[in-house]
Amino acid sequence: MQRIINEPDYVVEDMLKGFLKCHADIVHADESNPRVVISNFAKSKKKVGIVTGGGSGHEPAFIGYCGKNMVDAVAVGEIFSSPTAKSFYDAICAVDQGMGVACLYGNYAGDNMNVKMARELAEDDGITVKTAVANDDAASASTEELNKRRGVAGEIFMWKIGGAKSEQGGTLDEVISAAQKAIRWTRSIGIGLSPCTIPANGKPNFHIEEGTMEFGIGHHGEPGVKIEKMGNAKTIAAEMTNMVIQDLPFADGDEAAVLISGLGATPVMEQYIFYNEVEQLLKDNGIHIYRSYVGNYFTSLEMNGLTLSVMKLDEELKECLDKEARTVGITQFKGEQRNELR
Amino acid sequence: MQRIINEPDYVVEDMLKGFLKCHADIVHADESNPRVVISNFAKSKKKVGIVTGGGSGHEPAFIGYCGKNMVDAVAVGEIFSSPTAKSFYDAICAVDQGMGVACLYGNYAGDNMNVKMARELAEDDGITVKTAVANDDAASASTEELNKRRGVAGEIFMWKIGGAKSEQGGTLDEVISAAQKAIRWTRSIGIGLSPCTIPANGKPNFHIEEGTMEFGIGHHGEPGVKIEKMGNAKTIAAEMTNMVIQDLPFADGDEAAVLISGLGATPVMEQYIFYNEVEQLLKDNGIHIYRSYVGNYFTSLEMNGLTLSVMKLDEELKECLDKEARTVGITQFKGEQRNELR
Repeated sequence: MQRIINEPDYVVEDMLKGFLKCHADIVHADESNPRVVISNFAKSKKKVGIVTGGGSGHEPAFIGYCGKNMVDAVAVGEIFSSPTAKSFYDAICAVDQGMGVACLYGNYAGDNMNVKMARELAEDDGITVKTAVANDDAASASTEELNKRRGVAGEIFMWKIGGAKSEQGGTLDEVISAAQKAIRWTRSIGIGLSPCTIPANGKPNFHIEEGTMEFGIGHHGEPGVKIEKMGNAKTIAAEMTNMVIQDLPFADGDEAAVLISGLGATPVMEQYIFYNEVEQLLKDNGIHIYRSYVGNYFTSLEMNGLTLSVMKLDEELKECLDKEARTVGITQFKGEQRNELR
Repeated sequence: MQRIINEPDYVVEDMLKGFLKCHADIVHADESNPRVVISNFAKSKKKVGIVTGGGSGHEPAFIGYCGKNMVDAVAVGEIFSSPTAKSFYDAICAVDQGMGVACLYGNYAGDNMNVKMARELAEDDGITVKTAVANDDAASASTEELNKRRGVAGEIFMWKIGGAKSEQGGTLDEVISAAQKAIRWTRSIGIGLSPCTIPANGKPNFHIEEGTMEFGIGHHGEPGVKIEKMGNAKTIAAEMTNMVIQDLPFADGDEAAVLISGLGATPVMEQYIFYNEVEQLLKDNGIHIYRSYVGNYFTSLEMNGLTLSVMKLDEELKECLDKEARTVGITQFKGEQRNELR
């Protein structure tokens, strides 16, 4: 793997410097903790604070969803590692305005532990913190053990909904309730076609045989449910879409939001070819796509592969999804048309 | 190379289907020519039509810059191949409103030939067509032979400026003049760290030895000016930035727009690390970054590497650059702050 980096141990620092310079109109660093990125819009009105955090290497996630009407502060971890409890705590303190803070993060052991500690520290300061924990990865545990499932790209929907609800003036309970509904109604599935290498390790973190793919792979190369022969876009889309819609389950007549994310090295062209198949499969099942996102929204360094996330919608979620947003990852105009097909 | 496609010979068709479904709020296909993508905003007011076109495999370019205040219609070619003269002609006809059409495209033999034929056909119909031809790739010929240089990611600046000028009510001559200034004041340089494979060929179109990089590589793997030992972000940024700023040349006190694009497989993290170095180098040379773009803006399938484009600015270009835009590749709010550093 050839990389455009300086010191492998400082890739996160160097990346944050570039990110903050490039997007100074949207975000800034916390004054005392360089591992906390804060939205310039965080305190533009009195509202519930929205915090998330996670490991680096998933850019534009997590920092790229910090901004207007999405996340107010992000705790930044090392590559594929949880941020510290201190960073989560500093992020919470930075955006609390007395209405409480919603911490919307993914279900990983390190994050669970560090958010719990941060929450206790914040509550000692009199800040009310409530959480919604993303567990959208349908491949990571059975439907009987939803609380063991990992959070993946569906987190973006959770942030979009939670951030919009806060902007609408929702209370902490209302924000948490909307964010929890968003993630409860979201199912994701990923496939891996090639591994990735953590710069400081220098070797791929797993292996995928040419001609095969790992079905259900996690964002850090966690093993999927099976290794199978590589199919074409049609067969891969069918297997992934079926897993997602049967798991919730989605029903004939449902409206949904779809997010397809390349994992880092997947050509954008292939992502649209895949989207075309998914759209047809959902239509065949009577599921109407209300809004869709295709691109490198939540990556895993230079992994080849992609994730599919589908969120079932009701009027509340549609209203939140349609809300204007201004972040590096998602920029939506106020009053922008929906994705109605001609 | 493991790919998520169906028939290798139909990747462009399949991609376009997905793209048009996903972005039906921004673009639609021409009624009779499926290789022409038209902005839904093309005729929202009477203005000069903006047309471009190019080979596929560079997504989100070229189709992703079709939309509000950028390109009105795009002629779509096969992978890394020029669109047909007929597609350029149909694109021109689709967006002419009697004020003429500006065809803003890149300097490649096939495109030059096909645009020339399309222009003749259109002029037979009484449509005035003028062109601006991007030649921003500083590595592709010497300063004595600017007309031999290729167009690369700097085309995005040309489209942004030309589209904004048209929206402002500019005449065809004014639009062409602004677009030509944009590209005349833009210099780009690319590096390749790994090759890419055209799906229908099945084999990489060139080879890069591990530990080396191709300095000055083209968007289709055209040979660069030299093959050299792989450096780190700091040394690579220095070599690329120096080439760009000495070529125009940029001067102390200049304001500039910067666009860094991954070529397909370059982690977003590395693009920001690279940006951090470029920003420092420009500052050291007295060049102030007015606005910057970092991401996969103009790719080459799954090539690893990136391009750096820098455009010198004056008041006219700044005003056009700041204009609201709504395309898949660039979404900018009206009245959005500039990228002033805190």
